[in-house]
Amino acid sequence: MARRRDPAELTDAALAGDRGAMARLISLVEEGGEPARTVGRSMFPLAGKAYTVGITGPPGAGKSTLTDRLIGRIRKDGDAVGVLAVDPTSPFSGGALLGDRVRMQDHATDPNVFIRSMATRGHLGGLALATREAIRVLDACGIPWVLVETVGVGQVEIEIAGTSDTTVVVLTPGAGDSVQANKAGLLEVADLFVINKSDRPGTQDLERDLAFMLHLSDRGDGAWQPPIVRAVASTGEGTDQVWEAILEHRRHLESDGRLVARRQERLRREVAAIVARRLERRAVDACQGAAYERLLGDVTGHLLDPWAAAAEIVESLAG
Amino acid sequence: MARRRDPAELTDAALAGDRGAMARLISLVEEGGEPARTVGRSMFPLAGKAYTVGITGPPGAGKSTLTDRLIGRIRKDGDAVGVLAVDPTSPFSGGALLGDRVRMQDHATDPNVFIRSMATRGHLGGLALATREAIRVLDACGIPWVLVETVGVGQVEIEIAGTSDTTVVVLTPGAGDSVQANKAGLLEVADLFVINKSDRPGTQDLERDLAFMLHLSDRGDGAWQPPIVRAVASTGEGTDQVWEAILEHRRHLESDGRLVARRQERLRREVAAIVARRLERRAVDACQGAAYERLLGDVTGHLLDPWAAAAEIVESLAG
Repeated sequence: MARRRDPAELTDAALAGDRGAMARLISLVEEGGEPARTVGRSMFPLAGKAYTVGITGPPGAGKSTLTDRLIGRIRKDGDAVGVLAVDPTSPFSGGALLGDRVRMQDHATDPNVFIRSMATRGHLGGLALATREAIRVLDACGIPWVLVETVGVGQVEIEIAGTSDTTVVVLTPGAGDSVQANKAGLLEVADLFVINKSDRPGTQDLERDLAFMLHLSDRGDGAWQPPIVRAVASTGEGTDQVWEAILEHRRHLESDGRLVARRQERLRREVAAIVARRLERRAVDACQGAAYERLLGDVTGHLLDPWAAAAEIVESLAG
Repeated sequence: MARRRDPAELTDAALAGDRGAMARLISLVEEGGEPARTVGRSMFPLAGKAYTVGITGPPGAGKSTLTDRLIGRIRKDGDAVGVLAVDPTSPFSGGALLGDRVRMQDHATDPNVFIRSMATRGHLGGLALATREAIRVLDACGIPWVLVETVGVGQVEIEIAGTSDTTVVVLTPGAGDSVQANKAGLLEVADLFVINKSDRPGTQDLERDLAFMLHLSDRGDGAWQPPIVRAVASTGEGTDQVWEAILEHRRHLESDGRLVARRQERLRREVAAIVARRLERRAVDACQGAAYERLLGDVTGHLLDPWAAAAEIVESLAG
């Protein structure tokens, strides 16, 4: 049987609850181009109801295990949940790749759990944009919770996880994580810290360091103060507390219109990112052909500096 | 006394050997704008002789200590050396910031050692470009060796370190580094692996893992096969072997015209990055004003999807 690839047909099927169609829509979104745009256009008006939770932190912090626990917690309430595992360092996608993600396959037979990995197809900015579109597919199909897990704490991971409604930063004791978290910019994006593996030595130190750093960056009266929650994801200890803290943050955002403002700001940035991306494509188009090769010859011959060459190329685009 | 800030005056002083003027030129380059362009224009025709060595690897691998050792090794031969310590996660620059960088201050009184940190000023792509310009300042001033050390293994760090003539990837045993290195894309950029802290358990395992992964990604006949060198940077053990491997790679590149080809490809990518950056600025300019706000209102009102809005903005730029 031929796989249906027509976006409109897939959209109808996905909206009617066909999970296979949903997966294929996300593949289309990931691949980009005109089919992705068609999917995006039909999903956008239907989206806006799902709540997104970003889960980030250094490798080995236990993000996948915690995600697995949160899936279980959400399912206990009867809600459906989508998980996007985003790996900017991998060119692969579409399945559970990392060893520890195999755990999530506990939920493989549950039709109300949709797990999907997303990976780079050559353009990191594209991955962030594709992730937003994939969230919209899940959202439009009526999934009320979307967990976005990233593999590490690079700029792209933080950009992706940090634009969720609630961002959970997972750290572990004894790994010097508080200093690294600070350096990586995790402090600014965190709405909630989870100290995972908190049965290990160093938990109190990490907690104190985090509390101190949060104190230094005090966001002022009425602002959300990120709580620090202990957990041992491998046993499930602390899962309820993590979930309660997420719900608490959601209530905080919803109570005073901040959720709407946050989402509007996110859309703003998304539009700017798409504009930048499109202009970048124009740049790539401009960086080929005989005239460009001549300019480049002058650069590699050290007759013309790269900025002067770039200025000429940009000018030629305007003309 | 007023600090001289005139680029032309600073350039003359730097070329005559004034290290303070060199430092200020790098500050200008880092700040961007027209003075940076002036510096770039005057340095570019004079540059192209320095050999650059990128040093990257996960936090805690001992990159700074190894860099320190390499400085000592290079000085033993009587050559001058420049070090750029690049930290995409820090907004600070211009001094030795990280605790372990203090070691490098052993060389602070040596006029033939120039150490400088570079940090983000709001734009990561800008940092990569500014690093290239800073290298050119050192190069034009007659420094034959430039070591570029990055703090971590994010995309930007790899982009920066990975565009050196020789890229050294520093790993440590027992930290699961081989898997992480693979995931982070370090395997592709490495010309040479250093297993630092090789007096610790797990060294053989790491060596075997790396050899196996390199075998999997065999680059074919005649291609450079990245050697794996053991070191204990804290005691200086293995420094000579690391340096010998760097020289060996240099000889390999120089023997068959690959160095020229590599540098030309680097310039190519630099021009494309500058073009992209300039177009991005245009995008930011385009993303303000009444017309833009109206479009954005439609997006946040879910009447218009982000891609359609972006397309309208890009069109308005062309018109």
